[in-house]
Amino acid sequence: MFIAADLPPDLATPCLVVDGPTVERNIAAAAAYCRRNQLALRPHIKTHKSRRVASLQRAAGAVGLTVAKVGEAECLRNEHDDFLIAYPAADPIRAPRLAHLARACTVRVAVDSLAAVDSLAAAAADSGSTLGILVDVDVGFHRTGVQSPQESLELARAVAGHRELRLDGLMYYPGHISPRSADHPQPFLRIADTLGDILDLWSAHGLSATIVSGGSTPTLLESHRHNPFLTEIRPGTYVYNGANEIRAGLVAAADCAARVLATVVSTAVPGKCVVDCGTKTLAADPCGPAPATGFGLVVELPEAKIVRLTEEHGEIELPRGTDPPRLYDRLTLIPNHICPCVNLHNAFWWRDASGRLTSSPVDARGQLV
Amino acid sequence: MFIAADLPPDLATPCLVVDGPTVERNIAAAAAYCRRNQLALRPHIKTHKSRRVASLQRAAGAVGLTVAKVGEAECLRNEHDDFLIAYPAADPIRAPRLAHLARACTVRVAVDSLAAVDSLAAAAADSGSTLGILVDVDVGFHRTGVQSPQESLELARAVAGHRELRLDGLMYYPGHISPRSADHPQPFLRIADTLGDILDLWSAHGLSATIVSGGSTPTLLESHRHNPFLTEIRPGTYVYNGANEIRAGLVAAADCAARVLATVVSTAVPGKCVVDCGTKTLAADPCGPAPATGFGLVVELPEAKIVRLTEEHGEIELPRGTDPPRLYDRLTLIPNHICPCVNLHNAFWWRDASGRLTSSPVDARGQLV
Repeated sequence: MFIAADLPPDLATPCLVVDGPTVERNIAAAAAYCRRNQLALRPHIKTHKSRRVASLQRAAGAVGLTVAKVGEAECLRNEHDDFLIAYPAADPIRAPRLAHLARACTVRVAVDSLAAVDSLAAAAADSGSTLGILVDVDVGFHRTGVQSPQESLELARAVAGHRELRLDGLMYYPGHISPRSADHPQPFLRIADTLGDILDLWSAHGLSATIVSGGSTPTLLESHRHNPFLTEIRPGTYVYNGANEIRAGLVAAADCAARVLATVVSTAVPGKCVVDCGTKTLAADPCGPAPATGFGLVVELPEAKIVRLTEEHGEIELPRGTDPPRLYDRLTLIPNHICPCVNLHNAFWWRDASGRLTSSPVDARGQLV
Repeated sequence: MFIAADLPPDLATPCLVVDGPTVERNIAAAAAYCRRNQLALRPHIKTHKSRRVASLQRAAGAVGLTVAKVGEAECLRNEHDDFLIAYPAADPIRAPRLAHLARACTVRVAVDSLAAVDSLAAAAADSGSTLGILVDVDVGFHRTGVQSPQESLELARAVAGHRELRLDGLMYYPGHISPRSADHPQPFLRIADTLGDILDLWSAHGLSATIVSGGSTPTLLESHRHNPFLTEIRPGTYVYNGANEIRAGLVAAADCAARVLATVVSTAVPGKCVVDCGTKTLAADPCGPAPATGFGLVVELPEAKIVRLTEEHGEIELPRGTDPPRLYDRLTLIPNHICPCVNLHNAFWWRDASGRLTSSPVDARGQLV
């Protein structure tokens, strides 16, 4: 893993640097966990949006890729052929694009409405393709998803009634479960209850789920413990990690593969220094697990606090007695939420085991549809 | 001004739509204010990052453009030749690029350290160019800027001692002054005191400031009232405006030229609907003047509240008794902070007075250096 001193002094800042060996270790650890627990791994590419990183995930055994956007799948289709759109992407613009993509790839879509089922069926019929469907179940995050086993059954029966659609199973997103829930298994047990009720009801009507897709980075390593129905998980952030994951006690700074190299551009105001990274470089997300810790972590100054971000300035307060950085010193920052941070960069530097840097595009950045 | 119903139903969402006549009206109003008050206008392009919009600002009488990034100026140099880098961009990477740019354009840089003065002088000497210098003064925002008249004098004398540099004056950013300060003029009067002390000290040493550059969008229309020394202002946000400016009482929704067209993708969770815009489309910034109002404004549903943004979902809570939008309905959103929102889009739709849409790039997006 690198710090600023390990990077060439002529690298223009701010820039995103991704440590290849750390990425590979993070990918291997999740893959090994899934193998040990007979879970399929379908990583969400939202974090990296990179063809290079997606290919490493597939090479390590991922069964396919998860995306939020139709354009993300389209961008990756030259190297990949199995996509889950974990998003209700069934409106009149997206459904035809997905149906078209399904002529060449396995495409599954998560839905939570009859309108979505009908829209996707019509689009698939027009394209002569087949779309796999997962019924999205709200297990407590209350963002999307059907609200009851009965609603899930209605959707499943509607899917089964369209020959252009294939009922593949269930999807849920446990966004309400904090990393500390391992010690408090009730939220996991409630999810298992919900899924069990749904699967029983489906079974009573001759329907079954070959895929039950859950998982998030905070719950990644707890996936097996509390959910006997799960067949696969869809973590995204684990590939890079950020200060959110450090503050939650999930990972160490050494596991944070993607870091922003910054330059100190001002030391004029006493007690702080200013780096050339603000909300347009690091993203504005507060630290979920510990908002009082500020806007990320300064690797070289772990006791310092990024107290304020404006668009292009990051203000770092130094603890009393700390030697302040000098003007034009370079620092390595780990942002709170690495996913929107990556999304602000057109490209990143990939750092290989020998320290060599190669530029790599954030291929699917800007694919908003 | 437009709402979703005025836009073509086949426009893929989410997308940024900019109303040309509203932009032109916002530009004209600021230009007229400056003319009335003998202030030069040097708009900050951070908000739009668009060659099209920058050219409208120049055509309306702007004396030059303000940027934060060297790459932004480089991106605009084909049409523009007068740039203020309102940023301490004097490190070993940026100084040579600015000095090179100054061979063809008027380039001014704001500095708050002797090291920056020396760095820029050396780079200008190498390039055979001249850089104009504004001394950055901290007037209360405590981000960058010299801390005392004496410090400003030291920098000014250092600048005057380099023949490759031209001492042009002072710059400050009144980021700590809220829009309501018009009723409480003390912060403005304190700025005037600070500037007066500096200019007196400079004068006693035979130095003068031809430019005193201040201003922000919140203070735009108060610029003349409390600062007799001001020669120019650098607002950025005024060209588009956002929910921050509405909630602060500065503008009406009709003045918000840049809006995001969204599609309702889920209505499964009772009491809310979900649109296809999250922090990667609208930006995560809370509402500065009124954090409890949520993450922006829904033009078609002014009583609704955008209660939560995740990366690709925007959750809108509907007041009791409101007819909820239907699935795949389209809504027009005004984000809190329009500047980082624009920065998430590769392009925007420019809507002319006849309603015709043309795609226009966010040219300087991604220029991080």
